[in-house]
This record gives sequence, structure tokens and C-alpha cells, in this order.
Amino acid sequence: MIKKKDVPYRINLPEDRIPRQWYNLRADMKELPPPMLNPGTLRPITKVEELAPIFCDELCKQELNTTDRYIDIPEAIVDFYKMCRPSPLIRAYCLEEELETPAKIYYKFEGNNTSGSHKLNSAIPQAYYAKEQGLKGLTTETGAGQWGTALSMACAYYKLGLEVFMVKGSYNQKPYRKNIMETFGARITPSPSMTTEVGKKILEAFPDTNGSLGCAISEAIEAAVTGESKRYVLGSVLNQVLLHQSIIGLETKEAMAMCGEYPDVVIGCAGGGSNLGGFIAPYMQDRLTGKAKPYFIAVEPASCPSMTRGKYAYDFCDTGKVTPLAKMYTLGSDFLPAPNHAGGLRYHGMSPILSKLYADGWLDEARSYVQTDVFEAAVRFARCEGLLPAPESSHAIKAAIDEALKCKESGEEKTILFNLTGTGYFDMTAYASFLDGSMGDSVPTDEQLEASFARLPKVD
Amino acid sequence: MIKKKDVPYRINLPEDRIPRQWYNLRADMKELPPPMLNPGTLRPITKVEELAPIFCDELCKQELNTTDRYIDIPEAIVDFYKMCRPSPLIRAYCLEEELETPAKIYYKFEGNNTSGSHKLNSAIPQAYYAKEQGLKGLTTETGAGQWGTALSMACAYYKLGLEVFMVKGSYNQKPYRKNIMETFGARITPSPSMTTEVGKKILEAFPDTNGSLGCAISEAIEAAVTGESKRYVLGSVLNQVLLHQSIIGLETKEAMAMCGEYPDVVIGCAGGGSNLGGFIAPYMQDRLTGKAKPYFIAVEPASCPSMTRGKYAYDFCDTGKVTPLAKMYTLGSDFLPAPNHAGGLRYHGMSPILSKLYADGWLDEARSYVQTDVFEAAVRFARCEGLLPAPESSHAIKAAIDEALKCKESGEEKTILFNLTGTGYFDMTAYASFLDGSMGDSVPTDEQLEASFARLPKVD
Repeated sequence: MIKKKDVPYRINLPEDRIPRQWYNLRADMKELPPPMLNPGTLRPITKVEELAPIFCDELCKQELNTTDRYIDIPEAIVDFYKMCRPSPLIRAYCLEEELETPAKIYYKFEGNNTSGSHKLNSAIPQAYYAKEQGLKGLTTETGAGQWGTALSMACAYYKLGLEVFMVKGSYNQKPYRKNIMETFGARITPSPSMTTEVGKKILEAFPDTNGSLGCAISEAIEAAVTGESKRYVLGSVLNQVLLHQSIIGLETKEAMAMCGEYPDVVIGCAGGGSNLGGFIAPYMQDRLTGKAKPYFIAVEPASCPSMTRGKYAYDFCDTGKVTPLAKMYTLGSDFLPAPNHAGGLRYHGMSPILSKLYADGWLDEARSYVQTDVFEAAVRFARCEGLLPAPESSHAIKAAIDEALKCKESGEEKTILFNLTGTGYFDMTAYASFLDGSMGDSVPTDEQLEASFARLPKVD
Repeated sequence: MIKKKDVPYRINLPEDRIPRQWYNLRADMKELPPPMLNPGTLRPITKVEELAPIFCDELCKQELNTTDRYIDIPEAIVDFYKMCRPSPLIRAYCLEEELETPAKIYYKFEGNNTSGSHKLNSAIPQAYYAKEQGLKGLTTETGAGQWGTALSMACAYYKLGLEVFMVKGSYNQKPYRKNIMETFGARITPSPSMTTEVGKKILEAFPDTNGSLGCAISEAIEAAVTGESKRYVLGSVLNQVLLHQSIIGLETKEAMAMCGEYPDVVIGCAGGGSNLGGFIAPYMQDRLTGKAKPYFIAVEPASCPSMTRGKYAYDFCDTGKVTPLAKMYTLGSDFLPAPNHAGGLRYHGMSPILSKLYADGWLDEARSYVQTDVFEAAVRFARCEGLLPAPESSHAIKAAIDEALKCKESGEEKTILFNLTGTGYFDMTAYASFLDGSMGDSVPTDEQLEASFARLPKVD
């Protein structure tokens, strides 16, 4: 089926249409997500001062701000955003042809910058506010490396020190990710390490461990609070991160409107929720305020199914149990997902905002796929669309393809929109293992999950 | 010095401004480059039939076409170009600030597509014409892998078979490059191989060789002419490739004009000449027709200095001496450059069009840099511009920085324009060796070059 190409392949907003305000979804939620709890007292955290030893002051304010619908983006951040924004919205004409579907498929492409993913959208403001506060440096963790790379770029630009705790498994498997962060001047420590108390404890108990995201978070927080003029920053899960990432959705909605389009289905992959939460935000606003009713799908790996098989409960955000507790869909903070090539989706929890929206039925559906199905979709997509997707993003691609094939079946001309969060240049080992047939699919058993749930902190 | 930001950071032409015609520089040259010679008879090649066993028919016509100033781009190619074009023109505000220069620096960024370089501009038409001719497959060679990746993408799109002979050294050092080409469905053979007669001969003489671009070309041509319904394609040097790459220059000139700018200095890196030739083409037209007089600089690695230290003479394009002879700046077809991380610039010769322009003084200057200086510029650029350049492209960056620093000295507000051909994602080993201080600089001695020149074919 050859369609009339009445909208461009790539819809680029002009630079002067970069949003000047982030959108704070909480201001429109019918019920707010339950507050974070202090890990010592288990009492709700309501004051900036309680978070200020960990996070920059301005970011603490954003974290707790549930009332301001729009928050101004400082001019200096807008300028930095111009390096890579507005990002293109792409009409997937070639994929539509390949699938012979009557559906219209659009994707926002966030991998069009050197860090290769959407993570830069939050790395820039987080580094900016640290600089404004006069701090000397930041600490963070990284799993797959997208967040670490984005933050390295932002810190290089602002000439801020950066220490990255990188999950040891990734550190050993992905030397190039380490190299690129070092190129941007960051210091990389494989986690768990002997440089922190929590790292030492974990290494004592599990000398051969490959580490985990939860464990690297614990180390990075310790390094921040014990360091001089340092703060910790996180690339997902937090309310502030979803706020910054709303720029994806705001641009998308404007670019779609320029084409006279409104999506029937909105799809995003979900690890900690940073891209999904930011991407769907303005469409969720329409849904919450009764203006429209798009159907939302969150896609996660079957090996780490926090929304599809997790519990909605208070849990720690890290393995070392030093962070505040958040009410979220979780597999348990010491749940260790089976090896999976979508490192960015291997997190036990889920953004409290998205968790609440899912629990209340505003976020319509969560679904999971095994990774061989995801890579099959990725290769098919790459060959016709000419774009090599990250394994994480390919979860959304797989769901978009499935939705488009349903339309082929039913004859419906739905408009399907998904977020393509990043590129797969640093995931070639994964592609190779898919192509040579050695890739496996591993899914946790019910018994494993039940055992993990039994260890959840007793709060409610 | 904080400059008034009166033009955008990124200048994106709208999609409907993609050029509809390539520009054929030869039509405006005062004297044409001497013709290619048949390697058997040493007689000038003037007829399509003489090239048709090697190249697709339409491409043979383009190769020999010295008179048509503009050649229409088929609609299907324009549509494919839309995947990544128009590519952005970027005002390097951050680099200008970093250098504290009064100069204005612009660069065209051609790495904004999955193949990561400008090579796609010629891969698309070469695959398209093969498909139109009803061929089953193509063969080619690749060194660093940019060309092989681009061609794999184009062949995947047109569902054409592709066999890539990859220089054995790169094949072993860059497994991810191999993986990405395989993801797009190409078959990769390390060269020299036992699959061709010329490969067997070379392996017999040098069993431990790591191969070379010249040798991989010989194998790819043999595989094409002995295969069924196959042709050979090349990613640089040829007139047809410069023709296709003129799209870079055409877009650049239009985007610069949109900003009210015209460059004083135009800079490109030079290996076989594909990006430089296409990038400067429309500005060279102005120069040849007396409309303007921008200053042109070609930048090459000191380890492979074909323009700065080579001879302008007839030579073979490959090591196996099966190709036609071209008059060009050459280091000798069996010159083996020292290992250098800019694999895309490790070619013994130079485009005959550029060679002629340089010999006649239209191309003003060729200069060379050692790779540690190039990487120093690359890291400095990456940290302030937020873009990880390929080692090849970083040669142009180094020259642009040097020119901007001259302006700082003199106080001149020159407009400096360069082409940033690609990204460095697959070159992290090189960046790592620069950062840890293990990178070396090797430059051929005069004696080595004299010995190589003595082996040039006796033609003139």
C-alpha cells in the first residue's frame, strides 16, 4: 500500500519553539502519589531540608512541588537544549509500508545527540542547578551507561567534577561506554567498590557480584553525602526527572498538532519511568482534564516486570536501603533481574507518579516482552527505517508494530505514537547475540517474586 | 566574549528544500582532470561499455559525464534522503566562546544518521541504480567501516545482497562495525581472503598481513566481475561519488545564505576526497566562475599525506592493480600507511577532480596533522560542543580551531566553515589510547616515499 505522503518524513520544530516551561503532571492529577518516607522514621518527607543533603536545593523544591502546573526553564538551559532540541518527530512511512498497515505510525526520536538518549533532558538541568548552587561536583550511578554519558556531557559543559559508579557487569562488558564518559572528563568507578562503606559491605557478603543499579545508587549517595560540596543526581524515577522529561511530550504534542494529528495510542518503554512519564505527560493532561482519551501503553522487559507482575507498595529505591521509601510498583529492592540487554530497564521499581496513574487506571496498560521478540522487532525496524534503536527503545517499537498489525487485521486507521528513546551503537554485542541465535530469554518464576515480595519493608 | 546569538544554533532546512539535482563540478572546471586509463592498454577510457562490467550502467554514465552541470536526483532517492536530510548546519557558539575568538565558526554535521557519516549520500544512489538495473547484489570494500555501514543500510532498504570485504586489521579491531553491517543483512569477509584469486595471491606472499584498502578493493572487484548479476561500488575517489556528495555543499550554501553568511575559509578532511569534493563543490563553482573567492583547505593525516607529500601522477586505485589508472596525488598504490586511527583517511590516492584543482591552484592549501594533535582538538571540541566527532572529521576540526586562533591573534572576524563528516562511536579505543597517553604518531620518511614513487607505473 503506497500512502500519500502528505506530512514530511521528519517534522522539525524551529529552535524558537523549544518549550520555555516544563509541565508538572502532578498539578493535574486527581489524587497525588503518596509522599516519600524518611528511611529512618518512616514519616512523610515534606520539607526541602530533609532532601537537601542529597540533592541540590532547587531540585529538592521541584521534587516536592505538587502545585505549580508549569515551571520556567532558565534561559541558560534552553540554550544548552539547543544543542539537540527540538528533537525530530518522524513519520514511519517505511515501517508502515513494511507492515502493510492502514495505521499511521509516528515516533519522537530522542537519540539524536551524542549521549544517544533522552537522558540529556534531565542531565542538563541537574548539572545547571548544581553549578548555580556553587557545588564542586556530582555523583551518580549508571547501568547501561546512557545516563552516565549524558551527565558527563552536561558536567563537561559546566566544568563540574563527576564521579560515576558503574554497575560492574556493565563496566566489564561495555568498555566503550566507560571510554566515552572519560572522554567527557568523568571519573568511573566499577560498583560495588572499596571506595564506600556500603560497597565494602556488599563485597564482603558477595565478593563475586557483578553489582546492580540499586547497589550503585547506594554507593553514589554515600560518596555525595560524605564528599565536599557534592550532591547526588539520579536519571530516572524521581518526580524532578519526569518534570524535565516533559519537554519530550510538549514538543511531540506541538509537532503532531502541526501535522493535524492526535494519537489514538501512545506507547513508551518503561524502566524507572523517565521517558514514559515525560513523553505522555501533556497527553495525560488531556486525559485527566477530559479533553481527549488516548490509550497509554507502558512496555517493560519480561525479565524485569515491575508493573506487570510487581506489587504497588512502599519500597526503597536502592539495594543498600539508604534512600527514602517511595510507594511504587516494585519487584523488591534486592530483586536481581536475569541478565538482559536492555540495561536501562533493569530497575526493580517504577516512578511513583506513573505507579499511581497505573494503579488508578489512567495509564491503561502495561505489557512485557521477552528480549528475542524485542530484538526481532528492532532488526526489522532498523532495516526499513534506517535507524539502529537501543534495546530499551525497541520495547516500544515491538508494541507499536503489534498495534499496527492489529490495525491491519481490523482495517482501522489508528494513529500510533511512540517514543524512540535512544540509539544502539553501544549495544552491538546484544545485536550480535540475537543474530547468531545465542540470545536467551529468562523470566522470573512466581516463587522468586513471592520470596522477593516477602522481604518488602513493612509500612502500610 | 559573549556574542549576540543572532542566528540559531542549528539551522535546519525544511524537507522540501532538499536539493533535487546534484551539481557536477567538472562542468565548470577550466581544465578537466585527465581521463582514466585502461589498465591493459593504457588508453583513455571514454565509453560507458568499458566500465560497465564493473559499475552499474547509470553510474558509468555519471562517471564519464563532464558536461551536464546539474543531474536530476530521482524522486525515490530524494525520499530515501529524507531519512536523514537536510542535515543540520550548526553555529559553533560554544567552541567560539571556548576559544575566545572573534571568528564565526559554522559546521555542517553529516553524522546525524545511523551509518554515522556522510557516506550514505552516495550509498543510496549507488544501491538505487543497482536495483533499477535489476541486479541481485553488490560488492564493496570497507576500511574503518563507515562506507560499509552506509551501503548495508541502503542495500537493506532496497533488499539487495551485499558482500563487504573488510580490511582484516579493522575486522579484528572493530567487531562492532562488523556487527552493525550484519544487523543490516550484509555478508562480511575479512580481506585478504581465500575467496578470491587476488586474495589468495596476496596471502601466499604475505600470510600475516592485516590487509589494506587497496587490497580489499581488488578482492571486491573480482567478486563482482566473476559473480552473477553483481556490480562493484566504491565510496570515495570516483567522480560519481563526488557528484552525489555535492548535496552536502548545496544544502550548506543554502543554509548559510539563510543566515546571511558566506564563508571566508572552507575546510574539509581528505582521504579519498568524497566529503571534501562534495562539500566545497558549490563554493568552488563561485571561485571558478569569479563570483567569490573563499579559501579552501584540505586536511589529511601526517601518516598518509597524499596531497602534502605525494606525487601528481597516474596510478592504480588498488593494490592488486586491476582498476583503471587515474591521474591523482598518490603515495603509490602499494604504500602502506602506519597504523592511524583515522581509518577513513588511510588511502594512498586522492580524487582526480580534487587533485586537478589542487595542481592548478584552485584548491588553495593542503595541510597535515599528527593524530595526537587531532585527538586533542577532538576532545576539546566534544567537551564544549557536546558532539563526539570521528577521528577523520577531527582533522577538519583541528584546522578550524587553528584558523579561529589565528583570528584571535589578528582580531579578524572571519567566517570559518567546515564539514563534520561523522561520529566517533566506533572509535572509542582510539579515544581511550589518546586519553591514557599510549597513542603514537608515525610519519613516513622521505626515503620510504621515494622508494614508493619509484614503483609508480610508467605512463607519462
